[in-house]
Amino acid sequence: MSETWVNLAERIGADLHLDLTGPGGRRAALTRALRAAVRSGRLAPGTRLPPYRSLAADLGLARNTVADAYAELVAEGWLTARQGSGTRVAPRAEPSAPVRASAPGRAGASPPARGADRPAHDLRQGQPDPSSFPRSAWLSSARRAVTAAPNDAFGPGDPRGRPELRHALAEYLARTRGVRADPEAVVVCSGFAHALRLLFGGGVLRGPLAVEGYGLPFHRELLAQAGVRTRPLGVDADGARIGELSARERAVLLTPAHQFPTGGPLSAQRRTAAAGWACSADRIVIEDDYDGEFRYDRRPIGALQGLAPDRVVYAGSVSKSLSPAVRLGWMVLPGHLVDAVLAAKGEREAWAGVLDQLTLADFLRCGSYDRHVRRMRQRYRARRDRFVTALAERAPHVHATGIAAGLHAVLRLPPGTEPAALDAAARAGIALDGLSAFRHPEAPFPPEDGLVVGYATPPDHAFGAALDAVLRILPR
Amino acid sequence: MSETWVNLAERIGADLHLDLTGPGGRRAALTRALRAAVRSGRLAPGTRLPPYRSLAADLGLARNTVADAYAELVAEGWLTARQGSGTRVAPRAEPSAPVRASAPGRAGASPPARGADRPAHDLRQGQPDPSSFPRSAWLSSARRAVTAAPNDAFGPGDPRGRPELRHALAEYLARTRGVRADPEAVVVCSGFAHALRLLFGGGVLRGPLAVEGYGLPFHRELLAQAGVRTRPLGVDADGARIGELSARERAVLLTPAHQFPTGGPLSAQRRTAAAGWACSADRIVIEDDYDGEFRYDRRPIGALQGLAPDRVVYAGSVSKSLSPAVRLGWMVLPGHLVDAVLAAKGEREAWAGVLDQLTLADFLRCGSYDRHVRRMRQRYRARRDRFVTALAERAPHVHATGIAAGLHAVLRLPPGTEPAALDAAARAGIALDGLSAFRHPEAPFPPEDGLVVGYATPPDHAFGAALDAVLRILPR
Repeated sequence: MSETWVNLAERIGADLHLDLTGPGGRRAALTRALRAAVRSGRLAPGTRLPPYRSLAADLGLARNTVADAYAELVAEGWLTARQGSGTRVAPRAEPSAPVRASAPGRAGASPPARGADRPAHDLRQGQPDPSSFPRSAWLSSARRAVTAAPNDAFGPGDPRGRPELRHALAEYLARTRGVRADPEAVVVCSGFAHALRLLFGGGVLRGPLAVEGYGLPFHRELLAQAGVRTRPLGVDADGARIGELSARERAVLLTPAHQFPTGGPLSAQRRTAAAGWACSADRIVIEDDYDGEFRYDRRPIGALQGLAPDRVVYAGSVSKSLSPAVRLGWMVLPGHLVDAVLAAKGEREAWAGVLDQLTLADFLRCGSYDRHVRRMRQRYRARRDRFVTALAERAPHVHATGIAAGLHAVLRLPPGTEPAALDAAARAGIALDGLSAFRHPEAPFPPEDGLVVGYATPPDHAFGAALDAVLRILPR
Repeated sequence: MSETWVNLAERIGADLHLDLTGPGGRRAALTRALRAAVRSGRLAPGTRLPPYRSLAADLGLARNTVADAYAELVAEGWLTARQGSGTRVAPRAEPSAPVRASAPGRAGASPPARGADRPAHDLRQGQPDPSSFPRSAWLSSARRAVTAAPNDAFGPGDPRGRPELRHALAEYLARTRGVRADPEAVVVCSGFAHALRLLFGGGVLRGPLAVEGYGLPFHRELLAQAGVRTRPLGVDADGARIGELSARERAVLLTPAHQFPTGGPLSAQRRTAAAGWACSADRIVIEDDYDGEFRYDRRPIGALQGLAPDRVVYAGSVSKSLSPAVRLGWMVLPGHLVDAVLAAKGEREAWAGVLDQLTLADFLRCGSYDRHVRRMRQRYRARRDRFVTALAERAPHVHATGIAAGLHAVLRLPPGTEPAALDAAARAGIALDGLSAFRHPEAPFPPEDGLVVGYATPPDHAFGAALDAVLRILPR
């Protein structure tokens, strides 16, 4: 961005410069600059920050960019947000639990102390309940897998990933998601972002890339860094508007099972159209099946990949089903892309830990994965039902979309009310995102107001209070 | 490279085209193209490949590039090399153990069957004996760590890495390597290559970068892909010639404990000079401490980082000490680089698996890591002694360097004899590298002949035979 240094002196009564250059997007730069200022003590504990709208105006940034940066820093414990007292630098100028709460030698299995700096209610999308990780079943698989592994598992390894895992994944994905998977065409990676990096940063695919008009800003930034031009498609209740694809794009990135974050499944007609578009020329569909296992009201929708295995890159991970901490994902590739992806990955760079790969292979084969997904589906469905019921009773004017599946819902708000709702959420100590944060800046539709509520994140005992808190901040 | 398609028809009596475009260097492109040709069946099982010198001449490539590609494919099982029969496509057109020997459901703890396609003797540098992985101690640590972890360990995580591991590493590196490490300045990554990617691919540091005249081609390729210009320094028995550093370079990449691969430790005078060079301006030393724990004849040499913690990026990993399969490494950063490295890493991209991080933290704290390093040091020293003794008896004209430390030695050969020795090694089924493969193309010294022998790789029972095989192929 153009401003290198921004003087906040007038706003906060202190001489403060923020360096907004550096890698990543504007939100990342602002977050980083504020964090550095707090860490270095240039922003002293207790200092009141300007309202995000004022700072946005001062910096020439979108309001959401500043609001998101504040929310992220509140969630990390650098800032606090309290009703009536605005956003302030946290009393101790140090991040909370993720960095400090686990002191060296800490060994209790109890949850970390909930410091004064943490958000009271964490409803950010995209995270499964971390208290649900199946520790005991995972350790059993680890013991079996590490004990039984051949010696060569501890050598430099196959850049595709361990054969045990590729075979187990091929079987699992065929059975549960209808993916046509040859284990030799499965490439293990550390998650969907790694898959995108390999495909575009490694020169396997090139833009222009069509994307959905709503999507993760993080993915857009990653693509922009790789020099990929993206063109957004319209999005409605039937998913992305495939009819808007043109002959100019060489690939399209889709979330067919559950449009992210608005929630529509791609209709059968559009699935066929997407496969046809790719097959009619040398084009690729990237299918981000990020939460395809969590569908509540009918059978899961099979993967689009099954329609055109030679033109679809199917990608998934354990980040929603097990934990983002495991750092394991996978791609099922058209055969002609395998060698190029392996070259991009690097012969000597396995990335994903082999011991976790072996463990996940056992976890899949012995049925633990199925059992865990089933248990979590029941738990999330119960939360979803409770959420929808409470909404109907207490805020019937607010429409929720994307509730048939996944780990989050979108609450549609009256036009113009999203900023106030986000403001109220921050004051109430609720960490969540506004819908507009996910809108592609060039999306072919006007901004829509909404809140993206991740209902999977809180532990069970905290879910009720989080739900109440959200209902209280909705516009009347 | 300029040739896109190379016709091998005359050489092998078959109509074969090799696509030598794509990412990576020439060796990577050739290896990939040959592998693809074998996999697809275009190079049929049993087909005899042209001698590497002929193919090098045809393709306009350096001989070593082709010899290395052949050796790699022999090691992977795609090709075979037999005395008197040249290099041929392996009988089954499939890679051996790393990909296929571990069929799904395979559960024996015995070493994999030694198929006809594998190299008879694997002496590639850089790999610890995979049969030595401390499975039982690792699993004990995993059980303790995963059971005791706070719930937030299964959440999205701190991009710096788990605090338990950063604290354990800071303590360990201070104690054993003299590193001045604040846990808040430790950033966990997946290995040294990942560290380089973060530093240069992420825009944290910029070139020109001085490097040692000998080094890993893989690192040079990675830097070239990140657009970093490298200038090689001379290398002698005292390590890199620090006096050749100029004011033009902004950083230097060194292996102070044990120059890779020639083996000299950086002298005390040069250490001071390197620290002074960095401190006299805004410059950085990157210290690749890849095998600093394995020194046999005196106390380990402390890290250079201790001299100038504000100007040195210290990097290490478990790839040599435990296994490259674990995919865990670390950087100890000057404080002013921490935020930029975290921004390059990405707020939501942890890369290194958190469960392995927690396990390694316990493994370090409970003393298992010290015990394992001590055991492996004894084992490798015994191999080194046996190697040196056999060499003195049977090939006294061949000088070995770099034998005071590490997992490999360099056998210096008479000028012009390296290609023939590599040829003989390939025919004898020995996988190893020539010294010239590690020479920077612009190194300020002439090419030297040698073999880089990794004596840590074979399991104990196979070491004697591997040693004999190497002694037999040395020039008289």
